[in-house]
Amino acid sequence: MMSLIEALNWRYATKRMNGQRVPRMQVDRILEAVRLAPSSYGLQPYSVLVIEDRALRERISPVAFDQPQITQSSHLLVFAAWDPVEEAHVDDLIRLTAETRGQHPDDLAAYGSTIKGAVGGFASAHEKFQWAAKQAYLALGTALAAAAAERVDASPMEGFDPAGLDDLLGLREQNLRSVVLMALGYRDGEADRHAGLEKVRWPREKLFIHMSEM
Amino acid sequence: MMSLIEALNWRYATKRMNGQRVPRMQVDRILEAVRLAPSSYGLQPYSVLVIEDRALRERISPVAFDQPQITQSSHLLVFAAWDPVEEAHVDDLIRLTAETRGQHPDDLAAYGSTIKGAVGGFASAHEKFQWAAKQAYLALGTALAAAAAERVDASPMEGFDPAGLDDLLGLREQNLRSVVLMALGYRDGEADRHAGLEKVRWPREKLFIHMSEM
Repeated sequence: MMSLIEALNWRYATKRMNGQRVPRMQVDRILEAVRLAPSSYGLQPYSVLVIEDRALRERISPVAFDQPQITQSSHLLVFAAWDPVEEAHVDDLIRLTAETRGQHPDDLAAYGSTIKGAVGGFASAHEKFQWAAKQAYLALGTALAAAAAERVDASPMEGFDPAGLDDLLGLREQNLRSVVLMALGYRDGEADRHAGLEKVRWPREKLFIHMSEM
Repeated sequence: MMSLIEALNWRYATKRMNGQRVPRMQVDRILEAVRLAPSSYGLQPYSVLVIEDRALRERISPVAFDQPQITQSSHLLVFAAWDPVEEAHVDDLIRLTAETRGQHPDDLAAYGSTIKGAVGGFASAHEKFQWAAKQAYLALGTALAAAAAERVDASPMEGFDPAGLDDLLGLREQNLRSVVLMALGYRDGEADRHAGLEKVRWPREKLFIHMSEM
């Protein structure tokens, strides 16, 4: 566990990368951590696009304000939330659950109804999308920890035009909407003025409120 | 890194806990991982309430639909987003950054303006709150990985009444709104029917879309 703390201290939002390729084994382990990420009802209502193709990343660059890590990275991950999350998704999950655990789907009917109630209970389509997006952020947190544990640099990125990226990648046709990006690669220590900087974090006494009595 | 994958495989959303106390050293390491969690601009626009007091957790129980892990856990973490995120928060961050890195706050003025532009640029107060909430989810992802690495069980929880919890804890007066909970403790393997179950996750070919060409 000290090693996770060390990894989190080692990492930083890498703005300049050196173009070196991250070995497939390491990418696979980072993706496996994403796959294992917790989510509400275990539904993981998102897909993760894995983009290694350099030409495609060059086309993405302008919708991400030409931030260099889009093309200097090795792999670009696009976390895209399902929109809309539908009852059919819940049916898929129930089927997968039954299969994985050797149960009959009918025995999971009540559980399926609960999840469908939650999925159908949002005040608006937008609220439901925000909920799915939050699950993707949780997975992003897992992915960033995993990359750091691999000593692979990463840049989490909100600075892009989601609608533009959705158009470029044809995501709306797949009922997906891009939520957040993560570039994977290796820091260019010379070019990245952030590389040597001290990490800035709120002190514990500001971030945490200990309520031991009221 | 294999160890993070192992940890993620070990964990599950623990619904029944045995009341045993998590040692302070381990809680501290989990909180340190939260403190190191990445966030947009490094602003970490949330506070984390750490509730060990049993009587207080008993009062919280009804606003969380009496889920047993509220009182059976050792510590309850409440991730509460700042609402609203204000320019003064950005000024605090700039001051902290200058202090940490031995810079003059004036040298960070342009950076501060950029962040203020982002914080002031949301379409509505609600959109800004959702953005802050997403940062909290990212930190939750880090916290869950850290707890698993410590082999401390955890239950991430969306099933509670946020407004009710805010009232109970007086969060609105502190410009905070509860977003998601995380109970920390140890699984009650006998009582928790989820304890022995196979983990259910989408297969890689469903979760990931590899775009190597278009």
